[in-house]
Amino acid sequence: MAIRLSSLFLRTLRENPVDADVDSHKLLVRAGYIRRAAPGIYSWLPLGLRVLNKVETIVREEMDAIGAQEVHFPALLPREPYETSNRWTEYGDNLFRLKDRKDADYLLAPTHEEMFTLLVKDMYSSYKDLPVTLYQIQTKYRDEARPRAGLLRGREFIMKDSYSFTVDEAGLEDAYQAHRAAYQRIFSRLGLETVIVQAQSGAMGGSRSEEFLHPTPIGEDTFVRSDGGYAANVEAVTTVAPDPMDAEGLPTAHVEETPDSPTIDTLVAQANALHPRESAPWTAGDTLKNLLVTVVLPTGEKQMVAVGIPGDRSVDLKRLEVSLADALEVGGEIEVNQADDADLRSYPMLVKGYIGPGLSLDAQTLGADSTTGIPYFVDPRVVAGSSWITGANLQGRHVFDLVAGRDFSWDGVVEACEVRAGDPAPDGSGPLKTARGIEMGHIFALGRKYADALGLKVLDSNGKLVTVTMGSYGVGVTRALAAIAESNHDERGLIWPRNLAPADVHVVAAGKGEEILEGAESIVGQLESAGFEVIFDDRPKTSPGVKFGDAELLGVPTVLVVGRGYKDGTVEIKDRASGESREVGISSVVEELTREMGS
Amino acid sequence: MAIRLSSLFLRTLRENPVDADVDSHKLLVRAGYIRRAAPGIYSWLPLGLRVLNKVETIVREEMDAIGAQEVHFPALLPREPYETSNRWTEYGDNLFRLKDRKDADYLLAPTHEEMFTLLVKDMYSSYKDLPVTLYQIQTKYRDEARPRAGLLRGREFIMKDSYSFTVDEAGLEDAYQAHRAAYQRIFSRLGLETVIVQAQSGAMGGSRSEEFLHPTPIGEDTFVRSDGGYAANVEAVTTVAPDPMDAEGLPTAHVEETPDSPTIDTLVAQANALHPRESAPWTAGDTLKNLLVTVVLPTGEKQMVAVGIPGDRSVDLKRLEVSLADALEVGGEIEVNQADDADLRSYPMLVKGYIGPGLSLDAQTLGADSTTGIPYFVDPRVVAGSSWITGANLQGRHVFDLVAGRDFSWDGVVEACEVRAGDPAPDGSGPLKTARGIEMGHIFALGRKYADALGLKVLDSNGKLVTVTMGSYGVGVTRALAAIAESNHDERGLIWPRNLAPADVHVVAAGKGEEILEGAESIVGQLESAGFEVIFDDRPKTSPGVKFGDAELLGVPTVLVVGRGYKDGTVEIKDRASGESREVGISSVVEELTREMGS
Repeated sequence: MAIRLSSLFLRTLRENPVDADVDSHKLLVRAGYIRRAAPGIYSWLPLGLRVLNKVETIVREEMDAIGAQEVHFPALLPREPYETSNRWTEYGDNLFRLKDRKDADYLLAPTHEEMFTLLVKDMYSSYKDLPVTLYQIQTKYRDEARPRAGLLRGREFIMKDSYSFTVDEAGLEDAYQAHRAAYQRIFSRLGLETVIVQAQSGAMGGSRSEEFLHPTPIGEDTFVRSDGGYAANVEAVTTVAPDPMDAEGLPTAHVEETPDSPTIDTLVAQANALHPRESAPWTAGDTLKNLLVTVVLPTGEKQMVAVGIPGDRSVDLKRLEVSLADALEVGGEIEVNQADDADLRSYPMLVKGYIGPGLSLDAQTLGADSTTGIPYFVDPRVVAGSSWITGANLQGRHVFDLVAGRDFSWDGVVEACEVRAGDPAPDGSGPLKTARGIEMGHIFALGRKYADALGLKVLDSNGKLVTVTMGSYGVGVTRALAAIAESNHDERGLIWPRNLAPADVHVVAAGKGEEILEGAESIVGQLESAGFEVIFDDRPKTSPGVKFGDAELLGVPTVLVVGRGYKDGTVEIKDRASGESREVGISSVVEELTREMGS
Repeated sequence: MAIRLSSLFLRTLRENPVDADVDSHKLLVRAGYIRRAAPGIYSWLPLGLRVLNKVETIVREEMDAIGAQEVHFPALLPREPYETSNRWTEYGDNLFRLKDRKDADYLLAPTHEEMFTLLVKDMYSSYKDLPVTLYQIQTKYRDEARPRAGLLRGREFIMKDSYSFTVDEAGLEDAYQAHRAAYQRIFSRLGLETVIVQAQSGAMGGSRSEEFLHPTPIGEDTFVRSDGGYAANVEAVTTVAPDPMDAEGLPTAHVEETPDSPTIDTLVAQANALHPRESAPWTAGDTLKNLLVTVVLPTGEKQMVAVGIPGDRSVDLKRLEVSLADALEVGGEIEVNQADDADLRSYPMLVKGYIGPGLSLDAQTLGADSTTGIPYFVDPRVVAGSSWITGANLQGRHVFDLVAGRDFSWDGVVEACEVRAGDPAPDGSGPLKTARGIEMGHIFALGRKYADALGLKVLDSNGKLVTVTMGSYGVGVTRALAAIAESNHDERGLIWPRNLAPADVHVVAAGKGEEILEGAESIVGQLESAGFEVIFDDRPKTSPGVKFGDAELLGVPTVLVVGRGYKDGTVEIKDRASGESREVGISSVVEELTREMGS
């Protein structure tokens, strides 16, 4: 049945919605595909639902093709399993929590590792039952701090999530690679360019993971890639550090007056003016900044940490969060913020702007004094034998030629600095370039975190209980639709890929005569008989101009205009993307369009 | 692709789950169609999801056929629209409420009248846009006090809900009748017998509604029907009242001693012993019970109400709730409970067991004294001119020959009594019988309640703003699946209707030889080529007995056994329902099954 615009529940808008910040959001609303119901929460109108179903079908087919079996879990879930895995707490404010009438705790699931683990535990008990991969296409909830960009970062959204259960790591590797390949096929069929980047796994707790990023200037994720094929999420980039150096023969450290030098720039200027170096002028890279940050642990406790980074680098708090969570072994996500004056006041021995490594490094003895109790971490570039100008913990003084490993030590190494274009790729494949992308999919080699926490074990071939090895894998379905719209539009509207468009052909009856409407009707009938999905603009009192505008806005790739030429036996086939059009005889319309669709 | 039991995510159970109270629940769990995730909340396993999809497809096809357009709304919704319609409060504990990280109020939608109203308001503005009917098949939430019977009364469930928008009542009637007919087709295709009963609309606030009840002994709803075609929810039955009578010539009322007669039985005995009537002995039907009830209004306020009913009838608090809510014009649901001693203590003038109409009716003057301020309602049988024995508000005394309308008055008439088998149908179609059923669908001629509350108006053909008229219509999709299972099983397992079964044929390879497995494999291939959906029990180490048991439990209507006869060129076709089987030649299997499916 053709979709008739005379009765379709549709109202196109000429104006952009005021809350829309990206083109896909503006156009999906203006073209009547979605409507906002609340911040980050959308309703799907008939045309939007059609496209969404096509996206889901592609995802489903590719999951079925790798032998994954479809199930469907509730969105409303009890607290207990998430308590056991610690994610009830770890998810923090991102989790929608609620109570039922008996005051029992529930959540709206952001992802379902726990439930799938428990289901397999309930059903299976032997290695013979494995491997098994289960998936669902289901509505998920995350209480994003800043829902934005329409469907790209919503609070209620549809995800395909799947979970593999295998008896060992080799099985996990197979399932992981099968998903990796399936995702490549999915995004290829969706017409979405994606880059596979190494990723940190964050709250998922996995040992290895990769993201499928769709490169776009409006992406929220920064990633880096080298010409040699390396690609990674910024959080996953490891710094190429120099080798440790021999400290022998290096000058001893000495404290110098550096009046009025609380910043790196002023410090470098003071150092060159008052204590010039023979070999070359001091640069920011010779200085060591010691930052104090506050860490909110998964338990909610707050802790102070100090981090030393080269003075020519800026801190990247997100990279630091990921790396420090590992270094502190807290088993969850942490929140890191720069310490403020109030935080510093608890440590009167620290002199703001002149903080040294070891924090209360004594100016006379140069010995580290750990009375502050604040753990001290350094950037990987601070290798043993490297020499620095850094704070002396005395107002207006810095210490020069302070050698790492000789004059100060540290509690661990963290990735605290921003990654810059031009930095070397960790795998030696050349300098990095930075780009922006949207995360379209994510694959995690989870390992045994959830199976351990929830006791999912099976008997192996020797009759011994072994903990099951898991993977978890996600594709953002509603997000994919938005990304497709974002990458397939012009200033006049959407331009859907042929296989995802709400219809194959958009037929416009352009003109007032009964004859034209009847002619269009007859052509629509022929197209339907030939198996085409048709949108038919049969609105009797709408001007051709408005109809053409709506056709461009809605974005069906082929527009068929039944208009002026009809009385001479011709209609016009327009390509939405190129704007090119050609006249064809009425009798050959079906044939022409069949050729068009095939191409 | 055949569903192979060697790899299907399935574990059948021999034991019934401990929390299951009805057969459908037991069997759906044992056969691996669903699993419980929390009270009233279920996960769908692969076979369950297949059947669910088939149910959804039938519902979708019939909705599309009446021109309803599919959309999809969020489950997580903001409070405001529900506040405006007053349902945020009215739903009471049945509503799941939660807060987001900004402390804004949200709910998990139990139904979507408000959102559809607002969407149409957002999109449409003219009578030319109407009529329009929208629907969705979507997950809904109700925090049931007693989730029970598996999917039959869950807390997270799937509903098809639709909403019609028309410019006037005539349009509503069309949409209502179209849904009524579509629902009849849906339930017919689902193989679910349903009775259409008149219903009260409860919190939906409609002016007219009908329920589609599936008669079953495990149903929670009691309904009545007459042989003449009347059918109604018990709450919707109106009492056939006698005509008002002339009070002239009736004896005057007189107070009599009726010691030790606090109940109807003791009162009738006392009356016949001490104050016998000439024409016939007094019966319970000659007495008037005056009940005090407490009413919790939609606002949360509590109010006392008195209700007079014939002494031979019991009160039906649910009927009273519905009727009294109308009589009090509170615009929402109320809760009614019998008053307890504590409630009565506030009214010292009332004598427990001897309460009269008018409540503090003075024994001397027999004049009603309204100092209690408690409104007084009566059953429809208490018509003007009817004569009663009733309480005199004096310990141990009743008043005789008290005539309604002459000696006491009332504030309104309510349906307060139970409906009994044998009561006359209100439409004169004969005596009523009672039965039990499950509500499968519900259609509401809503009128303008939501459009008024949310300001949905359009310009009519005269350019005048008119409020849109609405209907709302629901089918319980997951509930339908459970009801189908409930009505289609035996002690060995499920017996699906052919069009809803997870597969057309369940092929069992019964026997150990490689030959049999290979033979079955080849037959499965032929069946698939012929377009059959096949479940193939290819488990190499499972005994035929276990396989036959599982086939019966899973409930595919046709089972094909490839076993002993295979070497002689025959296989066995078994009918799951009747248990009958017959041998057919291997070469004619496809032909035989094609005939079977066609029948």
